[in-house]
Amino acid sequence: MTSALEDLERNLRRRLAPDCFREIDSKYGDEPRGRFHGSIGLLLAPTRVSQVSKILAACHKSHVPVVPYGGGTGLVGGQVLEGSPAPVVISMERMNRIRSSSSIDNVIVAEAGVTLADLQTRADSNERFFPLSLASEGSTQLGGNLATNAGGINVLRYGSMRDLCLGLEVVLPDGRIFNGLTQLRKDNTGYDLKNLFIGSEGTLGVITAAALKLVHKPRVEATLFLAVNDPAAALCILSQLQSEFGNSISAFELIHKNGLKFIRETHPDVKLPFPIASDWSILIDIGVSGEGELDKRLETVLEKQLEEDLVLDGLIAQSQKQRQHFWSIRELIPAANRRIGAIASHDISLPLGAITQFIHEASKKIDARGKYRINCFGHLGDGNLHFNIFPPRGVARDDCLHHRERISRVIYDLVHRYGGSISAEHGIGRLKTEELERYGDPTKLAVMRQIKRALDPYDIMNPGAVLASGSDERIRWPLAT
Amino acid sequence: MTSALEDLERNLRRRLAPDCFREIDSKYGDEPRGRFHGSIGLLLAPTRVSQVSKILAACHKSHVPVVPYGGGTGLVGGQVLEGSPAPVVISMERMNRIRSSSSIDNVIVAEAGVTLADLQTRADSNERFFPLSLASEGSTQLGGNLATNAGGINVLRYGSMRDLCLGLEVVLPDGRIFNGLTQLRKDNTGYDLKNLFIGSEGTLGVITAAALKLVHKPRVEATLFLAVNDPAAALCILSQLQSEFGNSISAFELIHKNGLKFIRETHPDVKLPFPIASDWSILIDIGVSGEGELDKRLETVLEKQLEEDLVLDGLIAQSQKQRQHFWSIRELIPAANRRIGAIASHDISLPLGAITQFIHEASKKIDARGKYRINCFGHLGDGNLHFNIFPPRGVARDDCLHHRERISRVIYDLVHRYGGSISAEHGIGRLKTEELERYGDPTKLAVMRQIKRALDPYDIMNPGAVLASGSDERIRWPLAT
Repeated sequence: MTSALEDLERNLRRRLAPDCFREIDSKYGDEPRGRFHGSIGLLLAPTRVSQVSKILAACHKSHVPVVPYGGGTGLVGGQVLEGSPAPVVISMERMNRIRSSSSIDNVIVAEAGVTLADLQTRADSNERFFPLSLASEGSTQLGGNLATNAGGINVLRYGSMRDLCLGLEVVLPDGRIFNGLTQLRKDNTGYDLKNLFIGSEGTLGVITAAALKLVHKPRVEATLFLAVNDPAAALCILSQLQSEFGNSISAFELIHKNGLKFIRETHPDVKLPFPIASDWSILIDIGVSGEGELDKRLETVLEKQLEEDLVLDGLIAQSQKQRQHFWSIRELIPAANRRIGAIASHDISLPLGAITQFIHEASKKIDARGKYRINCFGHLGDGNLHFNIFPPRGVARDDCLHHRERISRVIYDLVHRYGGSISAEHGIGRLKTEELERYGDPTKLAVMRQIKRALDPYDIMNPGAVLASGSDERIRWPLAT
Repeated sequence: MTSALEDLERNLRRRLAPDCFREIDSKYGDEPRGRFHGSIGLLLAPTRVSQVSKILAACHKSHVPVVPYGGGTGLVGGQVLEGSPAPVVISMERMNRIRSSSSIDNVIVAEAGVTLADLQTRADSNERFFPLSLASEGSTQLGGNLATNAGGINVLRYGSMRDLCLGLEVVLPDGRIFNGLTQLRKDNTGYDLKNLFIGSEGTLGVITAAALKLVHKPRVEATLFLAVNDPAAALCILSQLQSEFGNSISAFELIHKNGLKFIRETHPDVKLPFPIASDWSILIDIGVSGEGELDKRLETVLEKQLEEDLVLDGLIAQSQKQRQHFWSIRELIPAANRRIGAIASHDISLPLGAITQFIHEASKKIDARGKYRINCFGHLGDGNLHFNIFPPRGVARDDCLHHRERISRVIYDLVHRYGGSISAEHGIGRLKTEELERYGDPTKLAVMRQIKRALDPYDIMNPGAVLASGSDERIRWPLAT
């Protein structure tokens, strides 16, 4: 423990309740893919915004770095700072109250440490729906969802976390509290700070609470599992359905047959909706407000698409159980991927108009480098693909890992060429700071640094995330005090 | 003309095509309510982003203030800088190209000088719909709509301009070009600069182009005009309709009988949907994706509401002509207001749960001050009211204007008490800078100043808008050069 940290702890022990101080637990330095191992100088679990304020004011004063920690489910290392000096880790787990909710305003005000699943349950008990839905929703926390602008399966209809947030309470790097917990739908009073903090991955402050939108759940829902020849057919089906159902389509997921094969290999007991005959499948959720004819309308559309050979095979779920079964297949893909073991994973987005060509070219480029298995799946309706590369059958992952960088470079170069993004929903974290420097708009990066410098002159907030440490000679951490 | 301005003009004449220089025309110093009269040192009308960049770089260097000018329809004086030294006014009218559009991605990329009506027409010709809709759409320009985060009648379903924008091209105060014209639905690569520029009212740079979302127009639409007793009944109807139709409700407008009386007084030839018997009316648009039973479903809901005396009288438009007639009533209200002549206008928003109480209390407070006529109308579904105060019948407006400040203070104090906003959709401009200082979160204001200072150290961009000039001793314009 460095002396600066000792001084800080002594100082904080005078200002904070004893239960804010936790035994250091290495799990707060872990992240799901095991690519980063965070160090922890001091582990704090505040229960009130005033405590967060005191912590940041003290860290600001003594130039000690701070890492805010939510559910720990992030996939880009945004929650773990490696090396020394070790940071103050602020776990938000005890700031987990629902502060208020209103069915008239369709708003819920919740603290950063509430898990996504708990928020969904609470919305449900008010006969409302909170649309953000992620594989990790049981443990992921709202603060992290906001800091990373989390996406998931319902973005097509309801937007990302950003679109679901009306207001924020944030503690700034110097301890000042920004009280922006507005519940208003319209408020044009000055700069939009809310959206600046959302997606800034803990580098501009600690989000402590948020006012979030609730919606009315569609009354009638349908789920379809369709087999198609290629992504072009999937996009054509998306366009036809949008012209028929407008924004009633909640989810439109693409699944490559490798994903289904991985499930068969790793979870042999799981029954697939139909034999793996086609290269691609799509999973679709549609929800409408009240009309009883949804299934009939869908059957009509589907019959036409089958006739045109756009759809090769298709099922409309006949029960809630079957809906859940279809979705369980989709949700098993990440677990199956982990068991197979990817060499390189890519969370990318592209204009829909470029996706077919991208998948074709990217696959060709990877094929040219070896018999890699590609599992391409994701939120096609949003243009968001997870384009993950696995070792050739029978080859150990460790024997391929040295190709990771080269493979990712090939993928990202192509993404960039097509006007896409190297991080659609996971964020930059510490994993992609180099890529952001390479592909990001230089003016954007310069402005980001100007803002970071203005709000966090000592670079104490989650240093090294989003903006590489040392990438700007005027922000370099640790600073001489 | 000051000497700094003469030098600047000489400098720019060497760098810009001659057609960028316009004869000074006083109309660029006008604004619709005539409360501000802008001065103009140099009037420029560039056609390309590179020209805007050269202009700002030169102004930055010589510390000459810049005012970006769009359609000139803003109601808070954001487009006019009074006094001396006179600014460079950049009219965006010649940057009016549609750069591209895609029906697959449902995106259109347009320059800042395109009028809203032209964009709507272009979307329409692509069988798509651009939902932003304002009374001034014939002349208002996209750049201004973005700079002010314009709202209007379809926000309930589709959101404000912010929600309709995917990416921006912006020239920063020092001339650097931020190329953020992404067309992606998901992109988590760094801070969200787009939303920082949207709503900053030209104080952080000049927006030159935007990638905007298009949507599929609902296939079946219905318009209702209902008479109700009070705002509480209107909110109850909103809640019932939302539970039946979810987010298919595009517009939900409240109209006080004074608005209808003003129309009868100023536009006696206009036929009202029914005699003015009730205190309040509501105008509702609902659009669904394809089902043919919308009218029948609405009739069922309406019958129930009539039985419960929630609705006193109601019409469902039976033709496109009748729909337009209903909407023409709503759209005439601002024109009728202007002819009657308001003492004080307020563009406010409130939590829906507080609106009934607010209207009751605010009306009582105004009544206590005299026989003023109140016209309260607006986008009730968004919690956005226009709460405008008119002279007592028979009293001249000029004899009341000295009460304006006191009346507005009463209204805004109450808005603030209920957690509302003093500017829901019009922005701060130069009209409400004092109110923003009074009611805004101090930390928010401080952070806004930090950002402003970081990006525009000489405060050349639209100085005095949003943040009052001289409100921060470190930003004071004009600066010594």
